[in-house]
Amino acid sequence: MIFTFDIPIYYEDTDAGGIVYYANYLKFAERARTEFLHTLGLTNKEMLEQGFAIVVRRVEIDYKSPAQLEDVISVSSSLLELGAASMVMRQTMTRNDRELVNLKVYLAFIDVKALRPVRMPDALKEKLKPYLGEETCSRK
Amino acid sequence: MIFTFDIPIYYEDTDAGGIVYYANYLKFAERARTEFLHTLGLTNKEMLEQGFAIVVRRVEIDYKSPAQLEDVISVSSSLLELGAASMVMRQTMTRNDRELVNLKVYLAFIDVKALRPVRMPDALKEKLKPYLGEETCSRK
Amino acid sequence: MIFTFDIPIYYEDTDAGGIVYYANYLKFAERARTEFLHTLGLTNKEMLEQGFAIVVRRVEIDYKSPAQLEDVISVSSSLLELGAASMVMRQTMTRNDRELVNLKVYLAFIDVKALRPVRMPDALKEKLKPYLGEETCSRK
Amino acid sequence: MIFTFDIPIYYEDTDAGGIVYYANYLKFAERARTEFLHTLGLTNKEMLEQGFAIVVRRVEIDYKSPAQLEDVISVSSSLLELGAASMVMRQTMTRNDRELVNLKVYLAFIDVKALRPVRMPDALKEKLKPYLGEETCSRK
Repeated sequence: MIFTFDIPIYYEDTDAGGIVYYANYLKFAERARTEFLHTLGLTNKEMLEQGFAIVVRRVEIDYKSPAQLEDVISVSSSLLELGAASMVMRQTMTRNDRELVNLKVYLAFIDVKALRPVRMPDALKEKLKPYLGEETCSRK
Repeated sequence: MIFTFDIPIYYEDTDAGGIVYYANYLKFAERARTEFLHTLGLTNKEMLEQGFAIVVRRVEIDYKSPAQLEDVISVSSSLLELGAASMVMRQTMTRNDRELVNLKVYLAFIDVKALRPVRMPDALKEKLKPYLGEETCSRK
Repeated sequence: MIFTFDIPIYYEDTDAGGIVYYANYLKFAERARTEFLHTLGLTNKEMLEQGFAIVVRRVEIDYKSPAQLEDVISVSSSLLELGAASMVMRQTMTRNDRELVNLKVYLAFIDVKALRPVRMPDALKEKLKPYLGEETCSRK
Repeated sequence: MIFTFDIPIYYEDTDAGGIVYYANYLKFAERARTEFLHTLGLTNKEMLEQGFAIVVRRVEIDYKSPAQLEDVISVSSSLLELGAASMVMRQTMTRNDRELVNLKVYLAFIDVKALRPVRMPDALKEKLKPYLGEETCSRK
């Protein structure tokens, strides 16, 4: 399974080069991850109430083609790895099926008081499993 | 008539005070204005192709109550004044009918080559008229 | 007295119109206010430790001429009003003495626990007084 | 040689987690790259006038420890690779010698009209060479 979320591009997202500013794709990726968790029934607020948070440890991002003002880009999110206290997501941004940007995002579950890695809740892990898939296409 | 547009609040919008950063309401206001123009059949790109742009001359913004992570705020947009080459918009942001922020936004139509004020297209003005209304409630 | 602070314009500050995005001047204004407080010996962290914060109640911002990539703009900050629990600042942004943007910023001191207005510390008020001045030039 | 540039952290940079928002380190990295080019005598504007631009192809970013409000972080920039039309930079952000974030940034020189890779100017390449160094420490 893949979670898909659309992002409209506004002036705030662009820069004087006429295209989306390179840092802003990380904002889009996080919006998509947040909405993905919402569909699994989990909000950032609820996580904090349960004492844990999901933090980004590492991002690899490839810029292939730029998005522009008034584009609507589609963000596809799925899982490459699912550990006890971590996961790796693949997020791919496209416009009309053309790949613009892709990200490999390394996430860790941490206890917000101890600031230490913590096992993700079992119920959440079960909900995440269907989104786990091998990548059959290699990066060119 | 009033145009209403919903904005979900993500981590990117907040600051270390735990609330939405004060500059970001101007981003939300512009998203709402862009979507408003879309419903009138006009995109920023088309405006540029037609040789004009809408620029912000002045903003008055009142911060009444803060928005927070995971809120969904509603932006209501209408017109207070509609001139030949300018308009004044009222934009009000609420969460569950509680007013959070309101803006009075002074906009001008300019010729993008001459960088001078230019009359707005008649067809656009006709479409804008229904959104023009007097404010009957005074600011408390 | 007037506090002056320089801001270099980077790609992140601009938009597809080739100029600084209109919300970003509020970021610059807050950087200048933060640095102004630093020169008075006060950091945002220390304020929070002392139990108060300075919040923005209202902003009036006039956009007169746009800043562009690679500009260095100068932000001048002074006080128009200084109350027991509030103050009004004038912040003017220029490039080579040409006025680009000016803001009138209405600030309130609040108790961060009670979320209520609170008198500003006397020592701070004394340090602020020299920056208080009448505006002799009217807005054209 | 290593180019070092300091970045003060303001409210705009933080999020409701109380730390710097993860996308914003990419802004800091670009500020540092821009200032690095300035010390080499090159501005973004001059590059555009000469018909070329430096674009980001890929970023690998590791988040090791978060920066917070009122921190001043130091960005060190050097080169890992220097090709005919591309270069790879290492950018490391520290606070009091503690490593917070590091980035490996893959940059390409492109002709802004043809949107194709183009050789970087010889004079620029000569100025960049002293900043080229092998990394002797492996990532733990």
